[in-house]
Amino acid sequence: MRTTIDINCDMGESYGAWKMGADAEVMPFISSANIAGGFHGGDPATIRATVRLAADHGVAIGAHPSLPDLQGFGRRVMTISPQDMYDLVLYQAGAVEAFARAAGARLHHVKCHGALYNMAANDAGLAEAMARAVKDLGGGVILYALSNSRMMNTAKKLGIRVAGEVFADRGYADDGTLAPRGSPGAMIEDAALAAQRALSMVEDGYVTALSGARVPVSPDTLCLHGDQPGAVAFAKAIRKAFSEHGIAVASP
Amino acid sequence: MRTTIDINCDMGESYGAWKMGADAEVMPFISSANIAGGFHGGDPATIRATVRLAADHGVAIGAHPSLPDLQGFGRRVMTISPQDMYDLVLYQAGAVEAFARAAGARLHHVKCHGALYNMAANDAGLAEAMARAVKDLGGGVILYALSNSRMMNTAKKLGIRVAGEVFADRGYADDGTLAPRGSPGAMIEDAALAAQRALSMVEDGYVTALSGARVPVSPDTLCLHGDQPGAVAFAKAIRKAFSEHGIAVASP
Amino acid sequence: MRTTIDINCDMGESYGAWKMGADAEVMPFISSANIAGGFHGGDPATIRATVRLAADHGVAIGAHPSLPDLQGFGRRVMTISPQDMYDLVLYQAGAVEAFARAAGARLHHVKCHGALYNMAANDAGLAEAMARAVKDLGGGVILYALSNSRMMNTAKKLGIRVAGEVFADRGYADDGTLAPRGSPGAMIEDAALAAQRALSMVEDGYVTALSGARVPVSPDTLCLHGDQPGAVAFAKAIRKAFSEHGIAVASP
Amino acid sequence: MRTTIDINCDMGESYGAWKMGADAEVMPFISSANIAGGFHGGDPATIRATVRLAADHGVAIGAHPSLPDLQGFGRRVMTISPQDMYDLVLYQAGAVEAFARAAGARLHHVKCHGALYNMAANDAGLAEAMARAVKDLGGGVILYALSNSRMMNTAKKLGIRVAGEVFADRGYADDGTLAPRGSPGAMIEDAALAAQRALSMVEDGYVTALSGARVPVSPDTLCLHGDQPGAVAFAKAIRKAFSEHGIAVASP
Repeated sequence: MRTTIDINCDMGESYGAWKMGADAEVMPFISSANIAGGFHGGDPATIRATVRLAADHGVAIGAHPSLPDLQGFGRRVMTISPQDMYDLVLYQAGAVEAFARAAGARLHHVKCHGALYNMAANDAGLAEAMARAVKDLGGGVILYALSNSRMMNTAKKLGIRVAGEVFADRGYADDGTLAPRGSPGAMIEDAALAAQRALSMVEDGYVTALSGARVPVSPDTLCLHGDQPGAVAFAKAIRKAFSEHGIAVASP
Repeated sequence: MRTTIDINCDMGESYGAWKMGADAEVMPFISSANIAGGFHGGDPATIRATVRLAADHGVAIGAHPSLPDLQGFGRRVMTISPQDMYDLVLYQAGAVEAFARAAGARLHHVKCHGALYNMAANDAGLAEAMARAVKDLGGGVILYALSNSRMMNTAKKLGIRVAGEVFADRGYADDGTLAPRGSPGAMIEDAALAAQRALSMVEDGYVTALSGARVPVSPDTLCLHGDQPGAVAFAKAIRKAFSEHGIAVASP
Repeated sequence: MRTTIDINCDMGESYGAWKMGADAEVMPFISSANIAGGFHGGDPATIRATVRLAADHGVAIGAHPSLPDLQGFGRRVMTISPQDMYDLVLYQAGAVEAFARAAGARLHHVKCHGALYNMAANDAGLAEAMARAVKDLGGGVILYALSNSRMMNTAKKLGIRVAGEVFADRGYADDGTLAPRGSPGAMIEDAALAAQRALSMVEDGYVTALSGARVPVSPDTLCLHGDQPGAVAFAKAIRKAFSEHGIAVASP
Repeated sequence: MRTTIDINCDMGESYGAWKMGADAEVMPFISSANIAGGFHGGDPATIRATVRLAADHGVAIGAHPSLPDLQGFGRRVMTISPQDMYDLVLYQAGAVEAFARAAGARLHHVKCHGALYNMAANDAGLAEAMARAVKDLGGGVILYALSNSRMMNTAKKLGIRVAGEVFADRGYADDGTLAPRGSPGAMIEDAALAAQRALSMVEDGYVTALSGARVPVSPDTLCLHGDQPGAVAFAKAIRKAFSEHGIAVASP
């Protein structure tokens, strides 16, 4: 049974004049920030401000690279090559890292965004390219990957540090992947239920899938969705549940 | 009198399916490559390939940040704030740096592109923001700036290393700035004349302005224009002149 | 004294996943919608939805072209050529027009956005290029231009229809231009005061400048800022004032 | 047996400072130009110049819309919705149309680019959305679609004009689709062979597939690849063959 868990949240997804998320409100509740690198959101000014905000809260700074799809917010699958994957991770992570260093901090982790996250979880070539990019970034940067995915094994084989990610507010299929957004049960909107699921994953190492099956998970880091209306309420409920059960929150 | 000079060239300005410049042909003749960071040219794949090419030739790797103007190739002035300047330099330089590190090399210098180069040379706020960005990149990164410009003084005041840049193939005004492209005498297309001007700047520390006046220059690095038709011929002529006069070519 | 005025508002400035403005709430109060063409906001899906919304309310559909500056929301001056101006107006207006026609409506007017609006108002070459683009669009499309600007004269000389635009919520300089955002008195945030200024411009043909001087205006169309927090309250106050004074609201 | 055929070519695929294709050299040999709409190539200035060039040669002006993927030149498949398809066709076709009208010409046809072309050929929802967009453009605009594809039937059902497209320089599968670029026999580089295949398709209505099977085709328009090194030689060889066999070249 774990006594510590990371809570990560996508951050810095505003772009120019357009605002998204409640970064300042959510930051106090998390231990890792995944900061958009400019391809689906996050212009340079937003990256700088978000890195600063994370550093001020002692939150670990991560890069959140995406497919180059600003119009589609990185949610549309594109058939890219493993080389494309490697290149776009390095580019966006390097950009975020420069701001981290300028803020007196360092790049702690990388987590892919949207469609890229799912593509990397399941495709051998993309997973290997992703892991290689994180390795080449150097500095012990940690890869956040879907718990029990092929991506996790690939990362371990390449000798890079990897954290298994779980989701308290998403429905699971029997194979440990997430039910697609829009399918029944895919999104869990009740904060109390989400908190209970989070607890159960951390304490027992299992999640109840949509079918009712018990699916094993490796909960190193828990994803909080910062762009949901109730993000802060979710965060508070989960932190309270963890606190009551003696589970500490800290970045890996 | 100097016995060593750097030769730098803008590189990696292709974008996706579009090719520009003769990077592979020119690389053997230079000691510093200014690699486009994606805002006026240079997608992630191009950055990776160009960094690799430079590393293979022992050429120092620099970032070449630009205004965000892909359509205008970064040649159109935009009224940006000093904060914008800081942010876009850090973003693009960070991206190039990640590829340099992945190639087993390091980021050696930063030189602004096109309109941004001229804007930074003359505007106090932009020059200061530019210098601060280079300082915050850390690692002893060198700023390449127009010889004798305000930018050079600003950089020195901030305590960062700076290299004065001169141009063998451009006409000069009496105040040491470049005559604008398109004005009479702005472009020198004769390789022999350019080589002679290069020599004279390095050996004497002066350039003859369009008015005939002798203008002092600080020739730490000489810019070669890689996108001109005769780039390779220029490069050979200048290298030959330097060699015959015992002037070594090396990055600062 | 006028008995009819147009009320126009910038619309469709969302982009992808990012929302901006309160288009649906404001649309019932206006007679002309200036719909962003994609360069500072407004992806194709947003254009389609906004054109549909305007058509459903009987609101005249206009194009709202901008400098190509998504990160800066089209608010940063760029030194473009008159040919650039012509090209970007035609491109963006053509795109909006296709959606208008698909919705069974037509393109009614063009109004430039942000920095482009101010640049066109004062620069002879840009004004001429802008007017020529509107002329070449054909179909009697009307140009909305700053009241009493050089742009208005240029448009008249070229024989295109032009509507003089006034602002109820902005401070004026003595020469009839707007006080720059950020300067004292530039923004009027009191709805009652704005309504009174609107009335006075329409009924008397004058606006009181920041200096206290009375400046003549040609109020064919009044701009409502839809992205302000109090946009709907402003709209209601102005409509009420017009209604009480027997001034009808209709597109030119 | 046909006595007239259209020859179409992708045109205007330069972008800003980057040049692509040999538009001016190829234009005299074709009857239809598919002009890039800005999403994979073709900035507003390039569209204007290319429309002008086509109009001057009496070549029919078409729009060549693409997925929004400048880095990938529109060659990477993206999972877009039918609504996305509709929107991006209307946007890009509308932009090209405005330049056509400004040049005293009109928009004659639409042909999708790269990955979008193949996606629309085979997917029911995308084909229907594409056809609906062309219908909503109005003005009798013709859809160019892969000969014998589902797209052709969809277009006919919606009552829009459609032209079946064949390729002289590409290998065919038994089902009438093109062998993917990179697979053996996919590209035919011999101009004489290509000319012979073109003739046979036009005169007999069949093409020999890679398997040796005879596959029926509907050759209303023949695609010439303008970005190949031998584009002009290809064009001349095909025009000569057509001329010798009494086949006229004209847009539908």
